[in-house]
Amino acid sequence: MRGDGLAGGEGGADRLAELIPVALRGMAAGVAERGGPVPAGGPAAVAAALVAEGGELGSAAGHRGFDPAPAASGALPRHGVGAEAALEELSRLLAAGSADPADPACAAHLHCPPLAVSVAADVVASALNPSMDSWDQAPVASELEREFTAGIARLCYPQADAPDAVVTTGGTESNLLGLLLARETGIVQAVCGANAHHSVARAAWLLGLPAPIVVPCEGDRLLPGALAEVVTPHTVVVATAGTTNTGTLDPLPEIAALCRRAGARLHVDAAYGGMALCSDALRPKLAGLDLADSVALDLHKFGWQPVAAGLFAAREAADLGALTVRAEYLNADDDTEAGLPDLLGRSVRTSRRPDAFRMAVTVRALGTDGLGALVERCCATAAEVATRVEEHPGLRLWGPPELSTVVLRPVVADETGDDELVARVRRALLEAGTAVIGRAALPTGPGGAPQLWLKLTLLHPGTTGDDYRPLLDRIAATAGAELVAGRESPVAS
Amino acid sequence: MRGDGLAGGEGGADRLAELIPVALRGMAAGVAERGGPVPAGGPAAVAAALVAEGGELGSAAGHRGFDPAPAASGALPRHGVGAEAALEELSRLLAAGSADPADPACAAHLHCPPLAVSVAADVVASALNPSMDSWDQAPVASELEREFTAGIARLCYPQADAPDAVVTTGGTESNLLGLLLARETGIVQAVCGANAHHSVARAAWLLGLPAPIVVPCEGDRLLPGALAEVVTPHTVVVATAGTTNTGTLDPLPEIAALCRRAGARLHVDAAYGGMALCSDALRPKLAGLDLADSVALDLHKFGWQPVAAGLFAAREAADLGALTVRAEYLNADDDTEAGLPDLLGRSVRTSRRPDAFRMAVTVRALGTDGLGALVERCCATAAEVATRVEEHPGLRLWGPPELSTVVLRPVVADETGDDELVARVRRALLEAGTAVIGRAALPTGPGGAPQLWLKLTLLHPGTTGDDYRPLLDRIAATAGAELVAGRESPVAS
Repeated sequence: MRGDGLAGGEGGADRLAELIPVALRGMAAGVAERGGPVPAGGPAAVAAALVAEGGELGSAAGHRGFDPAPAASGALPRHGVGAEAALEELSRLLAAGSADPADPACAAHLHCPPLAVSVAADVVASALNPSMDSWDQAPVASELEREFTAGIARLCYPQADAPDAVVTTGGTESNLLGLLLARETGIVQAVCGANAHHSVARAAWLLGLPAPIVVPCEGDRLLPGALAEVVTPHTVVVATAGTTNTGTLDPLPEIAALCRRAGARLHVDAAYGGMALCSDALRPKLAGLDLADSVALDLHKFGWQPVAAGLFAAREAADLGALTVRAEYLNADDDTEAGLPDLLGRSVRTSRRPDAFRMAVTVRALGTDGLGALVERCCATAAEVATRVEEHPGLRLWGPPELSTVVLRPVVADETGDDELVARVRRALLEAGTAVIGRAALPTGPGGAPQLWLKLTLLHPGTTGDDYRPLLDRIAATAGAELVAGRESPVAS
Repeated sequence: MRGDGLAGGEGGADRLAELIPVALRGMAAGVAERGGPVPAGGPAAVAAALVAEGGELGSAAGHRGFDPAPAASGALPRHGVGAEAALEELSRLLAAGSADPADPACAAHLHCPPLAVSVAADVVASALNPSMDSWDQAPVASELEREFTAGIARLCYPQADAPDAVVTTGGTESNLLGLLLARETGIVQAVCGANAHHSVARAAWLLGLPAPIVVPCEGDRLLPGALAEVVTPHTVVVATAGTTNTGTLDPLPEIAALCRRAGARLHVDAAYGGMALCSDALRPKLAGLDLADSVALDLHKFGWQPVAAGLFAAREAADLGALTVRAEYLNADDDTEAGLPDLLGRSVRTSRRPDAFRMAVTVRALGTDGLGALVERCCATAAEVATRVEEHPGLRLWGPPELSTVVLRPVVADETGDDELVARVRRALLEAGTAVIGRAALPTGPGGAPQLWLKLTLLHPGTTGDDYRPLLDRIAATAGAELVAGRESPVAS
């Protein structure tokens, strides 16, 4: 038997110790090459650079003479260049061409810079490759997952009798589970705020349910009065604890009380805000979360995990019974009776990575207090940045941040009423390679019409407000430049 | 700004270079500690060892005196032990308590030993954390994914005008997409063989479709005659190219012709067998695959990727239009018009790991020829093992392997008619920590009644038939021992 190139077994750690430094060398070279938060030039330049570097998968071997018969256009290369060459080259290309969330000017999305401890832990998970669909593929990994998800369930539901949680690929899958479990109790429609994540409507579509009833918001917060008019025992309400646009939290206690009175089910999308539960100072913001039937939580946002690190918690473990499925080869009745845990009902997936492992290692390394302190830091930084926006002559603040999102608008856009200018500022910064900032359409225009805002989602746990001062100046200056450019060439995009 | 613990940015590679060796040291220690394919003692022993080691997440800090106020039972630890301690300890525990597919006696499932090159590449992906839901989170990663999936689409559909492919979490999600795309064309029910993966029925359930019509099989192969009776323009047929139980391939050309005549849609679950396309010798087995409307493919089976590495190919790129969704913050119309690629319609997920990166690095390193050679090796080994089973006095072969699955039964089970004995053999080997083998219920009993078989799914690319000789002897000997034990204590399980 030869196991030369394998990551597991007796020689696996040694082979990884040879190859990972090659990948890291490539990565460090690429980071230095980029020299900013994102490669300049936009999609066309990035694609062209890939081709110029020979990074095109199909043509690379041909370029370099490894493949005597270059593959047809678009085909995968027939001949390999070896592990070291492939790793060093493509790692450099990936790093040089990435939007790196470890750069504070990369602040568009709920896209965090991962902690090294989680990345290191994931190496072991990848090498041993536990697959979480049966105990005999994941003996201790399934135990560790059980421990970890029990801890998450307890974090969300400190007082519940029998809460439980499962690992997902993120808020989108967690919201799907929230609607699925509701559907399986006979519920026929979802209700959510206009502020809800698009995955709620998408989940309804996937599950064959009608489109959700959408309830109006004020200040990006669901209006309980409007909700009261539509909620019935046949609906599942989806509230949001930290919206994607502004980080605002819905009034959970009022919504929960309303759902209880109406006999409706309640799912809370706390993908963004949920990990504020780790902070004594911030936890009160999430009062009422434990009244929900289920909760979505993402540790690839606050939690500093690489994507994906989603969690779905249920107040009643029994509700997860809806996911039960039998497959003779994975969880035969007699195996389960003989004591082999049934893992198949822990997910809508079958094969699945032990993402709980790196989450568990991270929590073991930092503790929930340590993670809570990082959440606090991001929120404090957002408050500082908001103050600087208010003080800035060229910028206007949407409102005080509730979590770590700062929403702002160049004053010139207000003065000219030019919404398209706001979108151009974002694209200009991206194309220049100087910043990655987000956008949000909010109903702040005349008569509640949508108006475009810029968004900074601050997930870098090592920054202070001052780190964002140059970015704010750059946004204002770019808005001025775009205003001039727009006047000179009204059709420019 | 401080980025001490981050994996990205300027100091990221250095921090990873410190921490990953700690994790690998823990892993190597755990592998040595285990000393076999799987920890002995079964679930109770593994759970007990975890507690004894202080590996319990909730209690560990308390055990070790880091936490002055030990958390409530089941809670996550409030206080951390630091990155190095957490990594070394939990990596060792994970390795010691894993079923390691790099050990040839770990041969139950479609659970491959990953290649080190893929694991090393994934470190860079984790550290930079591109999220594949928008270009500004994944500039070059989205380009590389586009290149790679185009290559996969071309592999599946060499002659098609405009094939396309997307990345999934595995066959389960790919089969869901197969049914979803069919549903969106107005198709109302799936039809599959009794040999189909359980995820087909589960997908129908998720999507709100009726349960699939199940067509009988012979020799674990769908019977086209029976299919012809139920297929209509309102059905999507799901055929299997490599069943989970036996690795058998459905007669794709006949099924495709039948679907065409009936105006039905065809999805092929080639999660197991699809990568045989990389081998000139094996490719003929997949004749007809390119007549399917869509194909599921898993590179975490043949492909030697860590879970997950799923792919879904469509003959007509336009069919993937069913996944189109708009979210102002990710793919606003004006951003798309300005040239920013719309990635949101490439998945039913939102945030998503760049799993294509490690797949692309692997293909660049080995070439499709290199991967094809590994597939051939596994299939050749399975043929050798099958011969040894046939020659073994204590074992009976189900039939010649079509891919790399060897299905066998202890002769004593036939002699006694004791199916439960077959299940006990599997559990006894697992509990002893000497082997992880699979099971399959096949209709070989009197009158087509289900009969239990043992299954070896051979995905270790470095073995030959001789490496499995001790395992075969052990299976036969264990069957003998279980027969005696069963006679002595008829209620034993």
